[in-house]
Amino acid sequence: MSLTLLTDFYELSMMQGYFLQRKNPRVVFDMFFRRQPFGGGFSVFAGLANALAHIMSLGFTGEDIAYLDSLGVFHKEFLDHLAGFRFSGDIWAMDEGSLVFPGEPLVRVQAPLIEAQLIESALLAIVNFQTLIATKAARVRLAANGGSVIEFGLRRAQGIDGALSAARAAFIGGAAATSNTLAGQRFGIPVRGTMAHSWIMVFASEREAFEKYAETYPDNCLLLIDTYDTLGSGIDNAIAAGLGLSKSQRKSFGVRLDSGDLEYLSKKVRERLDAAGLPEAKIVASNELDENIIHQLVTQGAPIDVWGVGTSLVTGGGDPALTGVYKIVAREKDGAWVPTIKVSNNPEKVTIPGIKQVWRFSGHEGSPLADLVALEDEAPSPGRPHTFHHPMGDYRSFCLEDYGSLRPLLGLKVKDGRIACESPALPAIQQRARRELDLLDDTYKRLINPHVYKISLSDTLNELKSRLIRESLAKGTHA
Amino acid sequence: MSLTLLTDFYELSMMQGYFLQRKNPRVVFDMFFRRQPFGGGFSVFAGLANALAHIMSLGFTGEDIAYLDSLGVFHKEFLDHLAGFRFSGDIWAMDEGSLVFPGEPLVRVQAPLIEAQLIESALLAIVNFQTLIATKAARVRLAANGGSVIEFGLRRAQGIDGALSAARAAFIGGAAATSNTLAGQRFGIPVRGTMAHSWIMVFASEREAFEKYAETYPDNCLLLIDTYDTLGSGIDNAIAAGLGLSKSQRKSFGVRLDSGDLEYLSKKVRERLDAAGLPEAKIVASNELDENIIHQLVTQGAPIDVWGVGTSLVTGGGDPALTGVYKIVAREKDGAWVPTIKVSNNPEKVTIPGIKQVWRFSGHEGSPLADLVALEDEAPSPGRPHTFHHPMGDYRSFCLEDYGSLRPLLGLKVKDGRIACESPALPAIQQRARRELDLLDDTYKRLINPHVYKISLSDTLNELKSRLIRESLAKGTHA
Repeated sequence: MSLTLLTDFYELSMMQGYFLQRKNPRVVFDMFFRRQPFGGGFSVFAGLANALAHIMSLGFTGEDIAYLDSLGVFHKEFLDHLAGFRFSGDIWAMDEGSLVFPGEPLVRVQAPLIEAQLIESALLAIVNFQTLIATKAARVRLAANGGSVIEFGLRRAQGIDGALSAARAAFIGGAAATSNTLAGQRFGIPVRGTMAHSWIMVFASEREAFEKYAETYPDNCLLLIDTYDTLGSGIDNAIAAGLGLSKSQRKSFGVRLDSGDLEYLSKKVRERLDAAGLPEAKIVASNELDENIIHQLVTQGAPIDVWGVGTSLVTGGGDPALTGVYKIVAREKDGAWVPTIKVSNNPEKVTIPGIKQVWRFSGHEGSPLADLVALEDEAPSPGRPHTFHHPMGDYRSFCLEDYGSLRPLLGLKVKDGRIACESPALPAIQQRARRELDLLDDTYKRLINPHVYKISLSDTLNELKSRLIRESLAKGTHA
Repeated sequence: MSLTLLTDFYELSMMQGYFLQRKNPRVVFDMFFRRQPFGGGFSVFAGLANALAHIMSLGFTGEDIAYLDSLGVFHKEFLDHLAGFRFSGDIWAMDEGSLVFPGEPLVRVQAPLIEAQLIESALLAIVNFQTLIATKAARVRLAANGGSVIEFGLRRAQGIDGALSAARAAFIGGAAATSNTLAGQRFGIPVRGTMAHSWIMVFASEREAFEKYAETYPDNCLLLIDTYDTLGSGIDNAIAAGLGLSKSQRKSFGVRLDSGDLEYLSKKVRERLDAAGLPEAKIVASNELDENIIHQLVTQGAPIDVWGVGTSLVTGGGDPALTGVYKIVAREKDGAWVPTIKVSNNPEKVTIPGIKQVWRFSGHEGSPLADLVALEDEAPSPGRPHTFHHPMGDYRSFCLEDYGSLRPLLGLKVKDGRIACESPALPAIQQRARRELDLLDDTYKRLINPHVYKISLSDTLNELKSRLIRESLAKGTHA
């Protein structure tokens, strides 16, 4: 089924306008976001492979054209033009799994205006959502402090693809597995899950339900112990079932807590399991968890080995969307690139003009120090001091003299409408995110009120921006 | 592509367990939710048609079976059983567009245990999300107080299907149109949209950009006026373009505000349009709107005709998921139905046992008064007084003597695995929601701290629940 019409209608009305006005210069659009979600200090870039697959698949079917025609606003010549549409441009982007920060371009699209316009809505939808969820997962994993995180969110996800995309992004951000079997099939993510309360309720007693489960799954027996009374019956019946397993089977034996006070219950349950001779038994916790609740429980010493996180992980609890936008930053005129800027009464909505690269400066141990946003043709020299300007204004700056290395973050992913760089396998993307987070200083990783990572404009870019702001105001008033 | 594996892995591990234990009685599961989202007083039921279509489509492909086999936990006999799987049960449900309240069953599934278990995750995912968004849309429409609402959320939605499902649900809840062209194609929802800032930025001046747009779309010319300076240039350039249109074209002429103080700007812009002789020009507002912001602006008299609502509408801003759950309430034993209950240390998590119908009592003018949850075989008598009990406990009750009518809310939608009642067309579902909301007393429609609608258990059901709570605690402790 064609997804080409997955675009805001205004993209199509503008496209027809450009077409009829014979205005189709090559342009450059940047995708970037304006603030970190969840009040955090970093985001984990995700969704690129899916967005690029979508863009590569674009093409208007006969049904698509017929639908557009039925709306009564499109001219025949334009519909004929659409019938031959394919994306022919270039796309530069960060690698999935990279740590990213507000204001810097994550994706840069260079294409004829009509093509660049069509892809806006879907690119934003896909990258905004997966980046949000990968970031949430990374925060949850940091809070779990070595404990394993499993994504359990299918039933509370926002639509079918909301669940699938969330499973993929959560894995990138650090979830070890998902409960979503389809995500396992499609993306190769490990799947996990044992029983719901209904299992226990269809047997005559909790004891029988646990025995039957242990009989069926002796090598993967995780028992849900809160159906009737966690400490009053659940733990005793679980211990009885666990003691019936062999020594090697007990290594994958455990219990799940899904209600009540998880600190109190996990400590009591741990004591009971240890006293019963089941020190290898795992404790899994679930029930409306998020990174803040997990952080508290970990800090209080709750002996929980595995965290099942659902709603909050797959919906980005606390921040339902990344504020990613897609803005035109240059257009070709008479064979040369002209940088463009959008000014605004809201200073944070002013865009950064020009065709840009992002350079990451790292310390001698590899820890990221600051990112420099520069024009593409001004590669900063390694080893030399660099002046950094705040991207929202030119009144703050500092000079970085001592750093270990610098590297460009935007790579060419699509050239002339074809994939130029295949996406790595999902586990490699997860590894990148993990490695970059390991290197990031702890001050940026605090869940609340973290240190703000420095994103700066180069001298040249800073001057260009100031000049264009002055000039652009004239565009409103001059005919 | 098969979506049969869109299920939590534990459904499959339980299904195999039931299969191997030869335990596959007919059972009844209820889907219900525990609290109103957004702190509101009602929800609008949505998503049923999509959930039923999913359930009707279930069937394990060779690829699905091969994937499950690759996981190394499923027996060959069970996989052979899955290869012949189809859903053969009955489904009772409320009509889409109905007002629904916590604690009452929205969907009731009667099927062999193995089948009823498989469908849990997807049914919840689809109905939870669409009900959430239809409810949000209804709140936004109430706040707009007669103004038109357009769903603009594609770029901030949670995945592709998150955007599509949200467009459908938002339309049910009262949005007049969507920006999502694919949703227009798939569901027949009206699509709307004119221009982004990029349109204005690729022309030499704002004046030229507006003139060219008016030239291209004289009959649907809505100009975005905040690219450079709303009151300093945007409104003047828009007025010039509007005055260039004919009298009949001006009826669909308007301006859009996408930043700044919307109350101040809309009032100033209205004055300027009126003074210029364009009193028919519409004002459209967008920019991170939700029902609370719209309510404030409407109350302050902002002359805004159309509200474009994005992120908050399609993600359920403030409440990312409906808390819908799916719990077993009865199972067949020796040819008879046995009601089941899940007790819990959290009283709000105790389920309501038995096979149930929901009866809505309405006033003489049709206004809903209270819902009675009763066992299926105890139809309440019209015209007679009825005692209502609070579903969370038996300590509060009242007697309803004066009411106009009562009607059952759950209807048979699927019989023996086949659709028994076709879903109405989407506009009819929207009409139902609108009619039911119009009839609902205003006290339940306050955005914040509304009157709590009464959902009550019948005497018989109340007694059954109390008895089962006492009995069930024994199931944990007795072997």
